[in-house]
Amino acid sequence: MPLQDHHQIVSVDDHLIEHPRVWQDRLPEKYLDAGPKIVEVDGKHLWHYDGNVFPTIGLNAVAGKPQEEWGMDPVRYEDMIPGCYDPAARVKDMDVDGVQAALLFPSFPGFGGGVFFRGQDKELSALCVSAWNDFHIDEWCATAPERFIPMCIVPIWDPVLAAAEVRRAAAKGARTVSFPDSPVPLGLPSFHHEAWEPFWNACEDTGMVISLHFGSGGYVPGFSFANTNTTGGELRIPDAPFAVAIALFSTNLMWSTVDLLFSGVLQKHPKLQFSLAEGGIGWIPYILERTDFVWERHRYYQPIDFHTRPSDLFREHFWGCFIDDVHGVENRHAVGIDRIMLEIDYPHSDSNWPNSRKRAAEVLADVPDDEVTKICETNARTMLNFPRVS
Amino acid sequence: MPLQDHHQIVSVDDHLIEHPRVWQDRLPEKYLDAGPKIVEVDGKHLWHYDGNVFPTIGLNAVAGKPQEEWGMDPVRYEDMIPGCYDPAARVKDMDVDGVQAALLFPSFPGFGGGVFFRGQDKELSALCVSAWNDFHIDEWCATAPERFIPMCIVPIWDPVLAAAEVRRAAAKGARTVSFPDSPVPLGLPSFHHEAWEPFWNACEDTGMVISLHFGSGGYVPGFSFANTNTTGGELRIPDAPFAVAIALFSTNLMWSTVDLLFSGVLQKHPKLQFSLAEGGIGWIPYILERTDFVWERHRYYQPIDFHTRPSDLFREHFWGCFIDDVHGVENRHAVGIDRIMLEIDYPHSDSNWPNSRKRAAEVLADVPDDEVTKICETNARTMLNFPRVS
Repeated sequence: MPLQDHHQIVSVDDHLIEHPRVWQDRLPEKYLDAGPKIVEVDGKHLWHYDGNVFPTIGLNAVAGKPQEEWGMDPVRYEDMIPGCYDPAARVKDMDVDGVQAALLFPSFPGFGGGVFFRGQDKELSALCVSAWNDFHIDEWCATAPERFIPMCIVPIWDPVLAAAEVRRAAAKGARTVSFPDSPVPLGLPSFHHEAWEPFWNACEDTGMVISLHFGSGGYVPGFSFANTNTTGGELRIPDAPFAVAIALFSTNLMWSTVDLLFSGVLQKHPKLQFSLAEGGIGWIPYILERTDFVWERHRYYQPIDFHTRPSDLFREHFWGCFIDDVHGVENRHAVGIDRIMLEIDYPHSDSNWPNSRKRAAEVLADVPDDEVTKICETNARTMLNFPRVS
Repeated sequence: MPLQDHHQIVSVDDHLIEHPRVWQDRLPEKYLDAGPKIVEVDGKHLWHYDGNVFPTIGLNAVAGKPQEEWGMDPVRYEDMIPGCYDPAARVKDMDVDGVQAALLFPSFPGFGGGVFFRGQDKELSALCVSAWNDFHIDEWCATAPERFIPMCIVPIWDPVLAAAEVRRAAAKGARTVSFPDSPVPLGLPSFHHEAWEPFWNACEDTGMVISLHFGSGGYVPGFSFANTNTTGGELRIPDAPFAVAIALFSTNLMWSTVDLLFSGVLQKHPKLQFSLAEGGIGWIPYILERTDFVWERHRYYQPIDFHTRPSDLFREHFWGCFIDDVHGVENRHAVGIDRIMLEIDYPHSDSNWPNSRKRAAEVLADVPDDEVTKICETNARTMLNFPRVS
């Protein structure tokens, strides 16, 4: 049976655009000037923060525009449909799209809070992180508590502060923390480093799912992009169209997944849960088979757990989602039927809005009813404990 | 029907270890001292070349050893079974393994000739490249012309010289050139750059297949490895076990594939053929579906061909191979049944030698006979024009 009226879609990957006063309403007075604010320059709305000007208010916020007009980011709030930055309007856009509940990643802070990591004044940065969480939970999600799933970001530059913010946000209702797909390209310790122990402990204690959104670590995949350094130490100017990176972003999450599977972190923290946001699912069977193959052959001479098969670890600790992934849906049992969720990606260009429900029905047309229920709704509710049941 | 006696396995990915006199037998006298030669130091056989000492004579040459002893590269020729460096012994090892014909990548030069690229004296480097080709074609392959498929490497630092070497090697019988999976990490122009036109033209004119072996560009995938540069400009010491990279090497070939599909090179050179060596095949359906999705949505504002669907281009220009890839074999029609080949990977650790034929029979047990014939033999013979039919 295809998608039916009783199936409620819960999306684990959407985005909001912050309105101009998110930080101005919340920062202490001494930081109002340096904190994020919108300034109008030559008819454009631009974020100013910590002495820098940011080129876009709504990266890739193309919902409602024809494909031929994509590629130009909105330069004024009026260039976007209100559902981007207004929660009441967003609920209406979700109704049009047939979506019951959604998890919304940040825009100005970067998916994983990287903008505040790069800020020079780290006291201001930490306040900006908390302000976003307060805005998101108390202002945005509070307008429709059954429709918006509370998320948080953390001060990723300090695992102890990050742990404290996880606990603070969890107490306010946050169900998941958006974290960089890897800390390494940011210059932070890798997932293999014990520095993250306070953060892992806080997530485990609070049941906080860790959402790894592709691109959240600032690393652009593909051989022709700037973070592919050369032997000579110079960064090359990319000459590949950005479509190459868009097609390849899931390779970031393949890297994150295998990194974590071989890190020992999952054995040490058996309750940790990772959501691979916007990564698709069609690659999972291959990567798990390959990782098991390597584990079977190469574990004798490396610091790897001898006893736990990586694919078993994956199915206890990871969740995947998709928008449009025919191969992944056909191979859903090789992925793990209890670990697959839908994403909508409003207002970004990968989204099928306002036809997300229609497209999901097409993709799920040959999937049995109980499996459709899991994929479109209950897996996400289970992962995110939404609504809260314990 | 499973693999049967009449099926001849043709492997498109194996390796040879160069014997000590490959270059000493061929270089002009003035370069004999600087050219590659084996020196015994503290009981170890080490390559000396261009003023540098190389740490291993046979990277990962573990054929015939128990898994518990892997991780230590051979330090003397006697540490390896003779089939590594002796073509007559190799034929016997192929007989034991049930393999009819094999394509052997270089060891000391790097899979794609990167060691000579890094040599300071480029006149010597170019002579070393040609010497390897002469050794491989005239000495090694000549011992059993029906069993060994001639390959060549090229001076990758100069597309005009590379084109000339392609034409010279083709005239001597070479069917494929081993080329870096990307030139970018080496500091060379990307596949998108017109600098490569002479090379593409030479490959097209001579029917020279371009073999992209994972790792041949020197780029190690995974967030924790050294070529993942940080924002601070310092290279981090990897703290991930190397198993992470071994599991992820196919992501290099995902990058190479998408780079080429969006480069315009394939439309300009309709005869070019690329072999994705040691990359597996299970990821191909997902990456093609994703690349088509991006092409459908994002081509309007980028320099991308509007008319040719990437998955159609793939099936005209790419070939994949596998050792052990259950997911890929199950999804062989989504990969393309005319584009899948076997690899054996002797003497490396991914190989099932001396049980390659047995393992292939297991993996192919549920595959129809005509498809087994294509996968184990005729696709490789077609791609490589081996034996030569035109």
